[in-house]
Amino acid sequence: MFNKGFKEIMFMKCIVTCFIALLFFGSVSAQNKNEAALKLKINRIIKKMTLEEKIAMLHGNALFSSAGVPRLGIPELTCDDGPLGVREEIKRFDWASANWTTDSATFLPNGSAIAATWNPIMANKYGVVIGEEANARKKNVMLAPAFNICRMPLCGRTYEYYSEDPYLNSQLAIQSVKGIQSQHVAACIKHFAANNQELDRDSVNTIVDERALQEIYFPAFKAAVQQGNAYTVMSAYNKLNGYWCSENGYLLNKVLKGDWGFKGVVMSDWAGTHHTVAAANNGLDIEMGSSGPYDQWYLAKPLLAAVKAGEVSVKTIDDKVGRILWLMYHTSMSTNHPKGAIATPEHTKAAYDIASESIVLLKNDKQLLPLKTSEIKRIAVIGDNAVRTFALGGYGAGVKAKQEVTALEGIKSRFGKTADIRFAQSYRASYLASKTAEQNGDYNEPDQDLINEAVALAKSSDVAILCIGSNREYESEAHDRKSLELPFGEQALVNAVSAVNPNTVIVVMAGAPFDLNEIKKSNHAIVWSWFNGSEAGNALADVLKGTINPSGKLPFTFPASLNDSPAFNLNTYPGDNLTAEYKEGILVGYRWYDTKNIVPLFPFGYGLSYTDFSISKLSTDKSSYKKDETIHAKFTIKNTGERSGAEVVQLYVNDPVCSVQRPEKELKAFKKVFLKAGEKKTIEMQVKVADLAFYDEAKKGWNTEAGEYVLELGNSSRNIILKTKITVK
Amino acid sequence: MFNKGFKEIMFMKCIVTCFIALLFFGSVSAQNKNEAALKLKINRIIKKMTLEEKIAMLHGNALFSSAGVPRLGIPELTCDDGPLGVREEIKRFDWASANWTTDSATFLPNGSAIAATWNPIMANKYGVVIGEEANARKKNVMLAPAFNICRMPLCGRTYEYYSEDPYLNSQLAIQSVKGIQSQHVAACIKHFAANNQELDRDSVNTIVDERALQEIYFPAFKAAVQQGNAYTVMSAYNKLNGYWCSENGYLLNKVLKGDWGFKGVVMSDWAGTHHTVAAANNGLDIEMGSSGPYDQWYLAKPLLAAVKAGEVSVKTIDDKVGRILWLMYHTSMSTNHPKGAIATPEHTKAAYDIASESIVLLKNDKQLLPLKTSEIKRIAVIGDNAVRTFALGGYGAGVKAKQEVTALEGIKSRFGKTADIRFAQSYRASYLASKTAEQNGDYNEPDQDLINEAVALAKSSDVAILCIGSNREYESEAHDRKSLELPFGEQALVNAVSAVNPNTVIVVMAGAPFDLNEIKKSNHAIVWSWFNGSEAGNALADVLKGTINPSGKLPFTFPASLNDSPAFNLNTYPGDNLTAEYKEGILVGYRWYDTKNIVPLFPFGYGLSYTDFSISKLSTDKSSYKKDETIHAKFTIKNTGERSGAEVVQLYVNDPVCSVQRPEKELKAFKKVFLKAGEKKTIEMQVKVADLAFYDEAKKGWNTEAGEYVLELGNSSRNIILKTKITVK
Repeated sequence: MFNKGFKEIMFMKCIVTCFIALLFFGSVSAQNKNEAALKLKINRIIKKMTLEEKIAMLHGNALFSSAGVPRLGIPELTCDDGPLGVREEIKRFDWASANWTTDSATFLPNGSAIAATWNPIMANKYGVVIGEEANARKKNVMLAPAFNICRMPLCGRTYEYYSEDPYLNSQLAIQSVKGIQSQHVAACIKHFAANNQELDRDSVNTIVDERALQEIYFPAFKAAVQQGNAYTVMSAYNKLNGYWCSENGYLLNKVLKGDWGFKGVVMSDWAGTHHTVAAANNGLDIEMGSSGPYDQWYLAKPLLAAVKAGEVSVKTIDDKVGRILWLMYHTSMSTNHPKGAIATPEHTKAAYDIASESIVLLKNDKQLLPLKTSEIKRIAVIGDNAVRTFALGGYGAGVKAKQEVTALEGIKSRFGKTADIRFAQSYRASYLASKTAEQNGDYNEPDQDLINEAVALAKSSDVAILCIGSNREYESEAHDRKSLELPFGEQALVNAVSAVNPNTVIVVMAGAPFDLNEIKKSNHAIVWSWFNGSEAGNALADVLKGTINPSGKLPFTFPASLNDSPAFNLNTYPGDNLTAEYKEGILVGYRWYDTKNIVPLFPFGYGLSYTDFSISKLSTDKSSYKKDETIHAKFTIKNTGERSGAEVVQLYVNDPVCSVQRPEKELKAFKKVFLKAGEKKTIEMQVKVADLAFYDEAKKGWNTEAGEYVLELGNSSRNIILKTKITVK
Repeated sequence: MFNKGFKEIMFMKCIVTCFIALLFFGSVSAQNKNEAALKLKINRIIKKMTLEEKIAMLHGNALFSSAGVPRLGIPELTCDDGPLGVREEIKRFDWASANWTTDSATFLPNGSAIAATWNPIMANKYGVVIGEEANARKKNVMLAPAFNICRMPLCGRTYEYYSEDPYLNSQLAIQSVKGIQSQHVAACIKHFAANNQELDRDSVNTIVDERALQEIYFPAFKAAVQQGNAYTVMSAYNKLNGYWCSENGYLLNKVLKGDWGFKGVVMSDWAGTHHTVAAANNGLDIEMGSSGPYDQWYLAKPLLAAVKAGEVSVKTIDDKVGRILWLMYHTSMSTNHPKGAIATPEHTKAAYDIASESIVLLKNDKQLLPLKTSEIKRIAVIGDNAVRTFALGGYGAGVKAKQEVTALEGIKSRFGKTADIRFAQSYRASYLASKTAEQNGDYNEPDQDLINEAVALAKSSDVAILCIGSNREYESEAHDRKSLELPFGEQALVNAVSAVNPNTVIVVMAGAPFDLNEIKKSNHAIVWSWFNGSEAGNALADVLKGTINPSGKLPFTFPASLNDSPAFNLNTYPGDNLTAEYKEGILVGYRWYDTKNIVPLFPFGYGLSYTDFSISKLSTDKSSYKKDETIHAKFTIKNTGERSGAEVVQLYVNDPVCSVQRPEKELKAFKKVFLKAGEKKTIEMQVKVADLAFYDEAKKGWNTEAGEYVLELGNSSRNIILKTKITVK
C-alpha cells in the first residue's frame, strides 16, 4: 500500500508539475507570440511612413509631446512630470499654467519618503496612483520615478531620489515602475546615469569606474528595465566618462539596449541633447525640451539632412520609430486602456498610507511620544513649516494639489477636540527675497521677534511641537545646498524654545540629510517627516498621537559632518574644471562610513518605534552553496512591547576575504514585518548566491568568489543583531 | 426782534464762516509750511549724495525695487503688483514664487467690478485694503489702480480697468488712490496714457487728437493727481502721437508735471523704457523692468555717461531724486507709518461688500430671481466657471488668495441646507493646451458628452444655474480677444440646458463685454458677475437668494455687434503699420452709440433691481448760471417695491447747440441711493458750470459756451426719465 501510494503521489506530483510548467511556458510563448505579432504590425506601419513622418516622431513638437502620424492613426505621444504627482496642465508652448479646473491632483510623498517606508508595496501604490491620474489627464509617459543614487548629501534633488543603496533602490524602482505601467502608462526612469549633483549638471563630466557603475549606479536601472519592464528611460544631463549621456554609446547602446535587452525608448532630459549624428547613432530615440523652433532641433531637420547625407542610416531611424510604436502599443494604443481617475479618495488614502509608513522616529529618550492626550491642555505648534505646503516650489516639477494637509491642520484635526492649539510662525523662510541674504549666501538669520513670540507661546504650553527643516525652495532641482546646516535660524529657535519647555518635539520636514548634531544631543523627541504629500499633516499627527506607530527607516546615512562624506572627504565635489571624478568608487553611503570606520550621526536603515522587537534564531537552510543556488535565511522576530508595530529587518552580507576590496557590508535583502503586541513570526529571506558577486573589471563581468561570507541581520546598518556564516563553493 | 435776530444770525454765520476759513487756510498754510520744510530737508539730502548714488535711485535694482542710499539711511523703494490685490512675493531677480507662507492676500474684485458698483466708497474701501496689505508686505508703491478708458471691448485688460466714461472713471480713481494712500502707501496710477489695446502694445503708436485726450483719456489721471494726490504715475508701453509714453515730453513734462502740477514720480511700465537721454529729459524718473544687467539699463550707467557728457543736466537728475525722496517721505519714511495687516476678516468683508454691489442683474423677465428657496428641492449648478478661481491666471499680475469662494461653494453655503445641489462641469476651458484650437484660433468647440451630462442634470433639477463667461486666461494682459463670442462652446451649452429647464439662470463671469444677443432673446434670468474676488461665490449666492438686492450698473456699453463699436466701425483697430489712429475722437463708449443712434445690446449705466424706483421732481436751484457757478439739481426718488435696494441715478448733460460737435450726452454726476421698501428721499447733485466745457483745440483750453444745456436724469444712459434745461450766461 505504502509503496503504491507513494508512487501514486509521486505520479500526481509529476503531472501537476508538468501542467504548471506547460501553463508557464504556454503563457510565455503566448506572450512571445503577441510580441512577435506586434513586431510584424509595427514593421508594416513603418513601411508606410515617409522619412519625414518618422523623424517628426523623434523630437518634441511641444513642451511635453512629440508628433504622431495622423494619416496612419498614430496619436501624439504625451508625457508629463513627474515624481511628486501628475503636474498641472501647462500651455502647449510655454511653462505657464493652462489654468484648467480639472487637473488638481494627488500630491504623493517625495522619493526619499517612499524609500523610508522600506516597503516596495508602497512604491507600487505610488505607481498605481501616478498611472491612474496620468490616464485621467491623457498622458502616455510619466517622467518618473527618479532614483539616482544619493552619493552626496547636498544634491538638490536628493528629496526626489530614493537611496544611497542600490538594492533598496532597485526594489523600490521595480515596484513603482510596475505600479505606473499597470495602468498602461509608461514610466520614464531617470536620470540615466550618474547624475548625482545639480551644480553644473548640464556641463559636468562625471568620471566613474565601471565597477562603481555596475555595483552602485546601474542596478536600479537594470532592475527597473529587466524586472519592472520600464518602457522608457531618460538620459541624464551630464557627461559620463567623457560623453554626454544623451549620446553615450556605452551607456545607451551597449549597456541599456545591448546587455540589458531594453526594448523601449530613450528620451533626453529637457534640453539635454547636444548633437544630431552622435545622439542618433549612440542610442537616443526622442529629443525633448530643446530650445528654438521645433523643426530645427537636433533630431528634426538636421537629422533628416544627416540621413540624406548617409551619416545616420534609415535602419537606425526605423529602430527608433519601432521602439516608439512599441511603447505606444503598450500605452496610448493599448487595448482596454483604463480611463483613469484623478485625486480620488483612494488616491488620498494611498498618499496617507505611504506618508504614515515613511515617518522616521529618530529619538524618543524620554518617551515623550506618543503624546499623552489626557495630560495635554495646550499645544504650541511652532514653525513656518507647520503651515507650509510642499506640493509646489523651487525649480522643477510640482503638483497642483487638490488637497495638502499641513502639520498645523493635521494636529488640529487630531488633537483639537482635547487641547487648545496655538501657532507661532517663529521664522521666515523668505531668504530668497532678501538681497543681503542672497549676496552673503546666508539664509540663516534668526528673527528674534518671531522667536520671542514662539518662546512665550512654548512657555505657556504643555507641549511644543517645533516644525523645522527645509522646503521645496531650499531643496530644489538645478541647485545644490551649500551646507548641511539647518536654515532660517532654526537652530537658534530650537535652542530658545527647548530652553523653556522640556516637552519639545522636533519635527523636521526635509528630503535630505541635515546637521542635527546639536538637536540630537538634547533630550527632545525628534521626528523626521518629509515633503509628505496630500495627507502629510494627518500622517504626522497620527504618529504624534500614536495612532500610527512609526516604522520608517532612513534610506541614506546622515553624516556627522559634511567632510565625513566621501565626495567631500576626497574633495571630488563639485569637481575641477567641470570634471567630477567619483574617487570613492563603490564606497558610497554606508559602504563608505562602515568600511572607513566613520561614525555617522544617524546610520542608513535607522529608525525607532513605539514598541520593541526581539530578533533571534538566525539560520540558513544550508551551510554551503553552489554558485547557482539560493540562500534561504530564517529568523524569528517578536514584538515584545505593548503596541502593534513594524520592524524593517535588514540582511547585510560581508565578504571577509576577496581578491578585490569589498565594502564592510552590503544590503542583500530586507523585509518590513508587521506584528501585533506580543506577536511572533518566523521570516524567511532569500539571497541568490550570484548576488554576492562583485563586478570584476578585469573579466568585464560579475564574479562570485568561493569562500566564506558572513550574513548580518539587524534593524539598521549599524545595529547588527545576529550573524551567521555560509560558504560558497 | 426779527431784524435783530436776523442780523445776529448773520453775524454768527459770518464768524463761523471766518473761523472755518481760518482753520482751512491755517491748515493749508501749515501743510504748505510742512511741504516747504520737507523740500529743504530733501535738498539738504541731495547735496550729500554723489552722482552715482543719485543715478542708482533712478532704475530698478531688482524686479520690484530700486536702490536707496544706505549710507544716508535712505531705504530701497519697493513696489508690487497690482490691481487685484498685493501680488505674492516673487524672487528678487526672477518671476518665480518666493514661496512665502505669509503672503496669502485678499483677492479684490477686478476693476470693472469696482466700476459696476458705481460707488466711490467701494473704490475707497478697495484702496484701504490694498494699502494695509501692502504695508504688511513692506511695499511702498502699489502698481494700482489701472484705469485706461475702455475704448475697445476686446482689449485684454478691460477687466482691470474701470469704464468707458471719464467722469465715472475719475470718481473711482480719486477714491481708490485716496484709499491706498491713506495707509502711507503710494498708488501708481496707470497706464499713462492711451494704452487701450494689448495687441502690439509695446510698439503701437496711438494717434489721438488733443480734445479726445483732454476730454476722454486724461480726466481720470488729472483727477487722481489733483484730487487724489497720487504719488506716482506709470508711463504706458505705447507711443502717443509719435513718442514713447516713457519719453513723451508733452505727456510727462508739459501736461502731467506742468499743467497738473504733479509733484511725484513717473516710473516706466516694466521694460517700457527705450532711450537714456530722451527718457531722462522728457520726464521719466525711474526705469523699471528692463532686461539685462541692472547697471546697464538706460537710466543706469548710460545715464551717468550722459550727465558727464552734458546731455542730461544734474538739475534734471536732482529733480528726479527729489521727487523720489518726496514720495518716500510720504510713504516708507513717513512718521506714524501703519504696520498693515494681510487677509484680515475686515478685508474679506470689504471684498464681499464690493462684490455684492458690483453684480449686475441684466434680465429677470419672469421674476425667476430671487430664487424661491421653499419651492426648490434640487439645484443644478452647471459650468466650469462655477468651480473655477480667478485670483491667478493668464499673463500679468494676480493674487495668491488666502480664500476664494467659488460659485458652487457659495451656492452650497447659501442653499445647501434646503436643497440638493449637484454640479456638472459641462465645458472645458482648456483650449490653450489643444494644438488644434490654437492653430485654428477656435476656442469654441462644445464637448457634447459634457453637455449631455449637464442636460441630464438640468432636466432632473428645479433650477439650473449656468455659470459661463470667460476666465483670467481668456481675458489677459498682453493679448486682446479675437471676438465677442462666448468661448468654450458655451452658447451650445446654454441652448441645450435652457431647452430642458425653463428655470435657467445664466450667470456670466467675465470682465468685459461679450455677445449675449442669443441669450438675451431667451426668457431666462441673466446675472452678470465678474472676477469678483475672495468672496465672489458668497456675494453671487446672496444675490441669487435675494439677501442682496443687486445694484450694479454696467460701466461700459455692450455693443450688439462688434462692428457697431467705434474702433471697429472706423477700422482703426489694431491699426495699420503699428499706427492706431483714434478716428472716433471724443466719441467713445455711449458718446458714440448715442450720437450715432446705434442701439446697443445693453447700454452704459444699465442694471436691474429686485425692487422698483420712481424718480420725480427734477429741479435746479436756478435757471440761469454764470460760468463760475455750480448747478444744484434736486430730485425725488422712491422705492416703490417691497424690498430694500439701491438705484444709481445718473445725470447726463446735453449741449444742443455748440460751435463744435458734442456727444449726444455726457455723464456729469451720479449717485447711488439706498432706499428701504417704500422709502423716499430727496437728492441733490451738483455740477460745476465749468464742467460743461469742451476742450477747445483752437484756444488750447476749456471752453464753456453760453447757451442752453439740457440736464437728463435717468437710471441708465438709455433710460432718461426726467429732463430740465438751464442756461449758461
